[in-house]
Amino acid sequence: MTDPWATFGADLHIDPTGAPGLRAGLMDALREAVRTGRLAPGTRLPSSRTLAADLGMARNTVADAYAELVAEGWLTARQGSGTRVARRAEPRRGASAPPRSRPPRSSPAYSLMPGSPDLATFPRAEWLKAARRALTAAPNEAFGYGDPLGRIELRTVLADYLSRARGVYADPERIVICSGFVHGLMMMGKVLRERRVREVAVESYGLDVHTRLLVEAGLRIPCLPLDELGSRTGELPAMRGAGAVLLTPAHQFPTGVPLHPDRRAAAVDWARSTGGLILEDDYDGEFRYDRQPVGALQGLDPERVVYFGTASKSMAPGLRLGWMVVPQSLVREVTEAKGVSDWASGALDQLTLAEFIASGAYDRHVRSMRLRYRSRRDQLVAALAERAPSIKVSGIAAGLHAVLELPEGGEADVVRAAAWQGLGVEGLSFYRHPDAEVRREALVIGYGTPTDSAWAGTLDALMRVLP
Amino acid sequence: MTDPWATFGADLHIDPTGAPGLRAGLMDALREAVRTGRLAPGTRLPSSRTLAADLGMARNTVADAYAELVAEGWLTARQGSGTRVARRAEPRRGASAPPRSRPPRSSPAYSLMPGSPDLATFPRAEWLKAARRALTAAPNEAFGYGDPLGRIELRTVLADYLSRARGVYADPERIVICSGFVHGLMMMGKVLRERRVREVAVESYGLDVHTRLLVEAGLRIPCLPLDELGSRTGELPAMRGAGAVLLTPAHQFPTGVPLHPDRRAAAVDWARSTGGLILEDDYDGEFRYDRQPVGALQGLDPERVVYFGTASKSMAPGLRLGWMVVPQSLVREVTEAKGVSDWASGALDQLTLAEFIASGAYDRHVRSMRLRYRSRRDQLVAALAERAPSIKVSGIAAGLHAVLELPEGGEADVVRAAAWQGLGVEGLSFYRHPDAEVRREALVIGYGTPTDSAWAGTLDALMRVLP
Repeated sequence: MTDPWATFGADLHIDPTGAPGLRAGLMDALREAVRTGRLAPGTRLPSSRTLAADLGMARNTVADAYAELVAEGWLTARQGSGTRVARRAEPRRGASAPPRSRPPRSSPAYSLMPGSPDLATFPRAEWLKAARRALTAAPNEAFGYGDPLGRIELRTVLADYLSRARGVYADPERIVICSGFVHGLMMMGKVLRERRVREVAVESYGLDVHTRLLVEAGLRIPCLPLDELGSRTGELPAMRGAGAVLLTPAHQFPTGVPLHPDRRAAAVDWARSTGGLILEDDYDGEFRYDRQPVGALQGLDPERVVYFGTASKSMAPGLRLGWMVVPQSLVREVTEAKGVSDWASGALDQLTLAEFIASGAYDRHVRSMRLRYRSRRDQLVAALAERAPSIKVSGIAAGLHAVLELPEGGEADVVRAAAWQGLGVEGLSFYRHPDAEVRREALVIGYGTPTDSAWAGTLDALMRVLP
Repeated sequence: MTDPWATFGADLHIDPTGAPGLRAGLMDALREAVRTGRLAPGTRLPSSRTLAADLGMARNTVADAYAELVAEGWLTARQGSGTRVARRAEPRRGASAPPRSRPPRSSPAYSLMPGSPDLATFPRAEWLKAARRALTAAPNEAFGYGDPLGRIELRTVLADYLSRARGVYADPERIVICSGFVHGLMMMGKVLRERRVREVAVESYGLDVHTRLLVEAGLRIPCLPLDELGSRTGELPAMRGAGAVLLTPAHQFPTGVPLHPDRRAAAVDWARSTGGLILEDDYDGEFRYDRQPVGALQGLDPERVVYFGTASKSMAPGLRLGWMVVPQSLVREVTEAKGVSDWASGALDQLTLAEFIASGAYDRHVRSMRLRYRSRRDQLVAALAERAPSIKVSGIAAGLHAVLELPEGGEADVVRAAAWQGLGVEGLSFYRHPDAEVRREALVIGYGTPTDSAWAGTLDALMRVLP
């Protein structure tokens, strides 16, 4: 044997029984592996030379065993395609084993569920180009466990991007890469508990996965009243127990109002005078359609605001990439809460996004998506004016969703009617805090969700179910 | 204005002060952005046409403001490269702000710290090819939030791979993708606590990040004695409170012994008779150098073993990809513990790894690395025989590290001497459970860590510090 450790051939775990080197033991082991399904039908086996080397057997022993198993119908051998497990060798599956892949979740024919961008627009070719450049340029250490804050390359370009595009006072040393807002909020929940904070004020309407997460972290979540100027942050001083407040200032989720400048100032005043923290969820700040830019609240006081951004809306949720800009005084605590390296996102995606932003492709993508979403919004508004003129639409200055006000008692009816038509929509009450003073009936329409080809049909389906 | 929403040019957050449309307000805003560092020196500004459209101003107003700021030295304008922030416009940085990038952590010139593969060998070109195929073939929904278990494409190829290469009874529906062993163990800690388990037996030597994580999950961690046949699992029945045991059966970490077949059987017997669970950390099972294949313990009883595998040793930790194969009865609980989608790994990396495995590139890579590491191991053993013949080496049948036994009192001396020589090594006592009966003195030598070019020098440095 000149090279007992061949580098070719599939890797196989085979445990021959009986005396070493015996053909019968090898055959038993292979039969058992096929019978139990460990070797799936069609699997290509290593060459007899390779397997012999792996097992320390003579090559002829393995070749003979293969030949005999072919004869027995367990394996097949064909010139050029090697030895494979026979197709008809049915593996045993436990009686209780489920089918190999679950049926797809029953999803409606049309979807206007909020929270997702148009997934068909992911810039695959541009992303791949960025991945090539990133992978070529990456230092070897990028493949290691890495910095718990995230890759410095990404934090550096994000600092510049957030600063120029969102008005965030960012510095690479205060940026923490995470896998999305929920990951970031979970870290902050831990930090707040360590700081003995017991309450985080939240908005009257919001995502329940976020509030549930705070509750699971051991925090109470009193809610702030909400009106047409946004959350009434002026009431924060009266909420004695609150050590932080969770806000969506650029585009309240889901009602869509931007937080009024006075309310922004009131939140910052409260934070300064009480030592409280503002958690700013800037989930879709890139998509504003009117002429008033709505910058990040964080710019008003970077030491009192924890800013959260994400690629989930601007690019795709599947990337699982988000970022926090944290006050200097919190960097150490957040890093500790992030904990061991396993919580970091994949280094290659981080490097690719850094390249994508640095090359200008991110700005181009955001601008192009903004045009596309604005045009959908305009079509939605026009369709409503024509076909459901009694319905008031709001929250449309920015973002990927709109709110359609419904008459009292109308929400449940419309959601049900939509389900019958194969249209997925979400009612506003799904997002209501249990203690919210006001109960509004409305639909939250995620007009970013459909693909371009589905858009016209989806809009039409919506119009059919509106009163 | 024919197209007020140009798709070109950088995205900029500018909030002009004063009456809308006024040049002075825009200039103030731009000056402020440069002064405070929000616009970094060298940043390219959008064209006057683009910015005018964004802000709803006349193009001439913006062009005039740009020209004036160029005159004032804030901006520079050059044919073909557009308008940029002047290089000498020094941004203000807060007095307390740290430097933009921290100095690299002081790392030793040579490292034999265990736990990392040779990062220089990451198969960049092959990975990129797989990424191209994966990105081209991905359905649109791959870019969405996705299945909490992980991508079905990856789970399907992993089921086949784990089955044939590691002897694992795997099914895509029992595989949960995670970002590494720690992530998986954290989920299991949660599941165990929900099941009211209070104690998890651990090995006498192991990684303290793992045991700490269990303790943080609210679990006690009594330890099993360890000898030359592996952990003494026969003592599990006497540990009345233990509801689970954490083991590294293929290659005990860090002592390197494989768990003896009798000990494997004893662990499974204990699990069956008490309803306990075995947590099998198969961190480097791909790398075995002798002729006795050591398959996964999970194959003995897939309903009593939770199997953990990872790409961190076989490929690179930077990928942050690992997998669990869980008993059918635990799938729902583990999925719930994984919680909201943010904990998933990036979809593109998952799809790329699926392609990488399916194409055979993973097997080729593992085989090639196995050859490389085996050769290093042989060189280490040969060097010891020649230059430090009194030192016994063990744990070398598999994996990426070896244990060098030292005379009593020798460990701390050698680690210190190594540090002086710029050689990073870890003593075995770093891994000792506080209640471990036996106290051994040894070095844990991660011979997978150096690059090929550093290997000879590193080995030489090690020989110089050994007694």
